Amino acid sequence: MLHALILAGGSGKRFWPLSRRATPKQLLAIAGKRTMIAETVARLRGLVPPSRVHVLTNRSTVAAMRKALPGVPARQIVGEPEGRDTTAAIGLGAALVASRDPDGVMVVLPADHVIEPAAAFRRTLAAAADAAKREGGLYVFGVKPNHPATGYGYIQRGPALTKSRGVRVFKVKRFVEKPDLATAKRYVADGGFLWNAGIFCWRASDILAAIAKYKPAIGAALEKIRASKGSPAVLNREFPRIEKISIDYAVMEKAPDVRMLEAAWGWDDVGSWTSVAAYLKRDAAGNSVAGDFRGVDVSNCLVLSDGHLVAAVGVRDLIIVRTKDATLVCHRDRAQDVKKLVDLLEAEKREAVL
Amino acid sequence: MLHALILAGGSGKRFWPLSRRATPKQLLAIAGKRTMIAETVARLRGLVPPSRVHVLTNRSTVAAMRKALPGVPARQIVGEPEGRDTTAAIGLGAALVASRDPDGVMVVLPADHVIEPAAAFRRTLAAAADAAKREGGLYVFGVKPNHPATGYGYIQRGPALTKSRGVRVFKVKRFVEKPDLATAKRYVADGGFLWNAGIFCWRASDILAAIAKYKPAIGAALEKIRASKGSPAVLNREFPRIEKISIDYAVMEKAPDVRMLEAAWGWDDVGSWTSVAAYLKRDAAGNSVAGDFRGVDVSNCLVLSDGHLVAAVGVRDLIIVRTKDATLVCHRDRAQDVKKLVDLLEAEKREAVL
Repeated sequence: MLHALILAGGSGKRFWPLSRRATPKQLLAIAGKRTMIAETVARLRGLVPPSRVHVLTNRSTVAAMRKALPGVPARQIVGEPEGRDTTAAIGLGAALVASRDPDGVMVVLPADHVIEPAAAFRRTLAAAADAAKREGGLYVFGVKPNHPATGYGYIQRGPALTKSRGVRVFKVKRFVEKPDLATAKRYVADGGFLWNAGIFCWRASDILAAIAKYKPAIGAALEKIRASKGSPAVLNREFPRIEKISIDYAVMEKAPDVRMLEAAWGWDDVGSWTSVAAYLKRDAAGNSVAGDFRGVDVSNCLVLSDGHLVAAVGVRDLIIVRTKDATLVCHRDRAQDVKKLVDLLEAEKREAVL
Repeated sequence: MLHALILAGGSGKRFWPLSRRATPKQLLAIAGKRTMIAETVARLRGLVPPSRVHVLTNRSTVAAMRKALPGVPARQIVGEPEGRDTTAAIGLGAALVASRDPDGVMVVLPADHVIEPAAAFRRTLAAAADAAKREGGLYVFGVKPNHPATGYGYIQRGPALTKSRGVRVFKVKRFVEKPDLATAKRYVADGGFLWNAGIFCWRASDILAAIAKYKPAIGAALEKIRASKGSPAVLNREFPRIEKISIDYAVMEKAPDVRMLEAAWGWDDVGSWTSVAAYLKRDAAGNSVAGDFRGVDVSNCLVLSDGHLVAAVGVRDLIIVRTKDATLVCHRDRAQDVKKLVDLLEAEKREAVL
């Protein structure tokens, strides 16, 4: 059977002041009417029912996640004792799936991406899941780049290996880390490099075996957790000791049989406030507004305000986000650096606004 | 005796969202610890006691003005039935002074300027008052320009006529309206042009006579108001019919004996948010901040916030003013246009934020 593991441990600092520790990005409806995690679960409808969805998140947000996902059984929304990067999270999720369904296949999904149309997405996942069930292997998903992004990892496509449900499955030649601009331009011109969407598919047993092979210590810890059948004491003891390493470094870049399917759907990791503008209507001056806003000579701004008038005069290329207790004014080109601001607030222990 | 008339009818739209109809600029402490009008009264200490201060303001702010000026007798804080420009206001004030003290000399002061040091200011006023008492004439005050301002009227200085208390008194050659930049540059280079500070001194009887001479209809209305000894019915009937014209157009540009004293003090009409920065401490990046602010790569900004975190990333030359129900983000070079924004809000009948 096909299961889904949703990784929902992110903090979403780049969406401050809307995102906070208690309401990280995946619990916000910043690109739709529902929270991003609810959209993520809904997107699987017809392929993976909520009863086979597992969510891994921070302990502090488990209650809010359960509220946001009423269809997902509460016990399947699990708080990690602490964040230990994706190898630990994916290994734990795979152990949960394998203990329930030893032959189970799983997709691994970030909680906070926008993917459309959902039907096309499900077709690609179904193709990968069929191939994984039939042939084994570790599957990733490549998105055709439309600009030389420097913020994503790239996958270099190898030869086509097979077809699954009519979708071509390629060998992955190699993974490359976030490139500089010149390199990214070469990748885009080359045509053989795709953005790594951060989505995976495999048999739970296959990824556990791969982790055990390349990271035996992590494999051993996961086996203890699996054997305990979800004992909180064992989880709390073993999990925080697991090496903090991404699944890309630990497994994907080493495993011999990594395969890629191409996305026949739009993908956006909604990485910063700049991305949000795309989900709002633009006025003639290029302003994307949600809430009460008035401007004189204002262009290309993103304004979010909740029950409070935000007014601007003679400005452009700004992101203005007003919340009840904090207001952000940020240049559009610096949206990534909102994280730096939050780090500053953390260093100053400004708990009330974190 | 020397009296003071403070003109406090301005709306201060340029200081939105801090200034509102109920709390215009002169009732704000934007350049000191006290409200601007309280500073204006305090600045006269030792020259004109509060018992001889008259204030003309909007009806809607009389109560707030009385609260802000506990030393000024309540009956001397008068609400104009409606704004009729400075000839009407000054004429009304002069009638009030003359009915109390027929030989009285008066200074006329805007309610919302910053003038320092106060002692030097009082010395200049005292010199003008002495000359007015002794010789008659209409007195204005010129401020040596330190830049080619296009937002002020200028006074062209004529020959020195006399000295009063050691201060030279010049004949005014002519008044010139707000010049364009090229003209303003010539004025500054010339050295014989000074900014018109909008401050006056004269015998109450002299300005009433001058108004009656150049604007007989206004003189007649004022005489009816004076003769009624402050009857609200007469004031309400006559005042709104008075021609709406500034004292500069109605009298100063026509009268033959207009004289000027030079300011030996700093003067600032605090015309927009840009001016406010000068009254706040600047950090190393040139930011002037009052309230809770954190920034990453922020320079040359003015930030005012009251009990709410304002944070900025990668911006410069902005004015950010946060109040309980409205927030302004404005480019420094566009501070004058905050008025346009308020006009827009007025057109939209956004009463709650006006």
